[in-house]
Amino acid sequence: MKIAILGYGVVGSAVAKALIENEKIIRARCGQNITPVIALARHKKDALIPITTNIDEILQREDIDVFVELMGGIEKPFEIVSQILKKKKPVVSANKAMLAYYRYELENLAKDLTFGYEASVGGGIPIIKALKEGLSANNILSIKGILNGTSNYILSAMNAKGIKFDDALKKAQELGYAEADPSFDIEGQDAAHKLLILASIAYGLRAKPEDILIEGIGNITSEDMYFAKEFDFVIKLLGIAKAKNSKVELRVHPTMINKDKMIAKVDGVMNAVSITGDLLGENLYYGAGAGGMTTASAVISDLIDIARNEFKSPMLGFRDDLQFELLAKDEIFTKYYLRLKVEDKVGVLSKIAKLMSENGISIDSFLQKPKQDEIHSTLFFTTHSTFEKDIQNLLLILQKQDFIKDKPFMMRIEE
Amino acid sequence: MKIAILGYGVVGSAVAKALIENEKIIRARCGQNITPVIALARHKKDALIPITTNIDEILQREDIDVFVELMGGIEKPFEIVSQILKKKKPVVSANKAMLAYYRYELENLAKDLTFGYEASVGGGIPIIKALKEGLSANNILSIKGILNGTSNYILSAMNAKGIKFDDALKKAQELGYAEADPSFDIEGQDAAHKLLILASIAYGLRAKPEDILIEGIGNITSEDMYFAKEFDFVIKLLGIAKAKNSKVELRVHPTMINKDKMIAKVDGVMNAVSITGDLLGENLYYGAGAGGMTTASAVISDLIDIARNEFKSPMLGFRDDLQFELLAKDEIFTKYYLRLKVEDKVGVLSKIAKLMSENGISIDSFLQKPKQDEIHSTLFFTTHSTFEKDIQNLLLILQKQDFIKDKPFMMRIEE
Repeated sequence: MKIAILGYGVVGSAVAKALIENEKIIRARCGQNITPVIALARHKKDALIPITTNIDEILQREDIDVFVELMGGIEKPFEIVSQILKKKKPVVSANKAMLAYYRYELENLAKDLTFGYEASVGGGIPIIKALKEGLSANNILSIKGILNGTSNYILSAMNAKGIKFDDALKKAQELGYAEADPSFDIEGQDAAHKLLILASIAYGLRAKPEDILIEGIGNITSEDMYFAKEFDFVIKLLGIAKAKNSKVELRVHPTMINKDKMIAKVDGVMNAVSITGDLLGENLYYGAGAGGMTTASAVISDLIDIARNEFKSPMLGFRDDLQFELLAKDEIFTKYYLRLKVEDKVGVLSKIAKLMSENGISIDSFLQKPKQDEIHSTLFFTTHSTFEKDIQNLLLILQKQDFIKDKPFMMRIEE
Repeated sequence: MKIAILGYGVVGSAVAKALIENEKIIRARCGQNITPVIALARHKKDALIPITTNIDEILQREDIDVFVELMGGIEKPFEIVSQILKKKKPVVSANKAMLAYYRYELENLAKDLTFGYEASVGGGIPIIKALKEGLSANNILSIKGILNGTSNYILSAMNAKGIKFDDALKKAQELGYAEADPSFDIEGQDAAHKLLILASIAYGLRAKPEDILIEGIGNITSEDMYFAKEFDFVIKLLGIAKAKNSKVELRVHPTMINKDKMIAKVDGVMNAVSITGDLLGENLYYGAGAGGMTTASAVISDLIDIARNEFKSPMLGFRDDLQFELLAKDEIFTKYYLRLKVEDKVGVLSKIAKLMSENGISIDSFLQKPKQDEIHSTLFFTTHSTFEKDIQNLLLILQKQDFIKDKPFMMRIEE
């Protein structure tokens, strides 16, 4: 089986290297050799396989059996992959951004062909396969994932070392876990792309990134970490999908999780996805979510499945539409955590409690941290389950009160 | 697709129930109905589907597309399954004991047919699929699994509540987590069967249960739990496979594990398997390892794969022999923990240290617990990595010393 690698960066070169070095086990697994014969790169360079900078030179070759797309970007790879699928050639891709926007168009184009995308979520964890095949008998009740290693590294470092967000980010950058411009990772976009892919396999949901609730980790402070420790929580950036009565809520945000949950124990750059099915209860899948060889492991598992002729299902795993709809953001119903910096004077707490009660929000726990300076205190609340729109409304009202300093901060809770 | 269920106990009836209740999602996943049309039971009973007590009545039917074997036992189901495979009909089985003895015979019989056995290891966790397909590009460096929920419940209870083995076992029996005769679970046999199945998929290894090192958890005391806590270990019954230079060591035994490892954090009746591959590093898979609906989830995922026509590989996942051999037990090389009850008199420690040194064993850490009575103390040692044969030899020598009371106890350490 001859393959072309479109994009010869960290992952592309790792795919070539792994195909060559692990030739023996790969042949034992699928009964044939999988040979990378050419790669597309931006510039000519020394490589393990022949390199071209001209995409047409690859697309015109008739001897390529599978194309591996690792270019990055959205529109350009979608255009190229569409061209390949129209020529009836299988594609394997790790491009989660392209899939977040064009997965249904790609499924239509792929039809009875193969489009493998195991590498798009969770690095080397075979999470696409688990959800599409391993858990196929289940109605999926929920998915909760640590889908971005950069964010998880930062939150783990803040938690373990008591350092501030900015210092943890700097540390992550020094170690190569965060990019110079880290916004895509820390603002939740990357996790959202992955969550959308998983939600398509679980529910057939057609949402795009702009349709769902996405919040990043940039506003989390040492005070939030302090509260979490006191109340047996851990803070993680989670991608969450939950189904109820044909509605699915999808959201990405920093989350307070009970410290005894398995997913709360996942530290550093590691990824993990917890999936609850109606038959099997909770399953959790854990592993490195990024890195050249890790991602190559997933890319090549797709290539081996193609060589084995085991790709027979539609790309996203459904033959019938399950007709789930996206739940409106306002209708999300969960518990919340609030951090408020207030002027420390008589009557403030009762005013806040009154505003909460007027908005139908009931307090589950309360903590007041010892004074930081002469005039300000920080108050922490958690609420019983309530609607997102009520919390958002409360935040708007609180922000207008003269005794509230700084912007009130809210985080959602999962138990 | 019409299926017959051979064995209508907890799992068999759950498979029928799940096929009926989850009909919609199952049809959406594979584009057809999977219908249980008859079941074999020991006695006539009320059931969701027609029941027979006569196996021939089922085997003679020409309209059955897939047979699901859930009978238990080894020889009898092997005989029946062989008959079915010879008639060129696919089989799905959860029978790990049969597979531990006859998996290669079954693979030969199945040839280009399908033999699904996802349910044989780890309940609803799709661990067979992960190893056979998801991680197929990797040379598997090691597998470490909590493969028996009963044992894990007992060890977790001893650890969390400070109770003794017998009391934890009684608790497990009250809760239905342990059988009246728990020996198969607590002596490591069940875990060994599952480990052998995983080792075949990872290495093509043909070992049988009697070929490998198997020790149970019955000799673990509160003192071992005390030591583990002091030295940041957790005790788990692990099934371990490790490959090095075409040799694979396979062993099942209680193990001291660093408490920060993900697998050390798996408590109660849950199962987890940690697999390290050369490309992806460590992956861990976690979920319930037993229970009717959990196991049904795995059985039906195999049925859906059959309906999708996605079973194309040989049953154990290899087309070429990888030629791994089983490492002799004596040649296992790891760190050890020793608990010795000794007469508390002058010179004992130096005698023990001398015996260890004479056997080429070097001490890594040492703890002496405050005296239990007037004349006895308990000494705890951990060693640097050493050969199994040297430890076994040391144990024989120690047992003959007059200052050693009770049988010396040893446990292996994984870091």
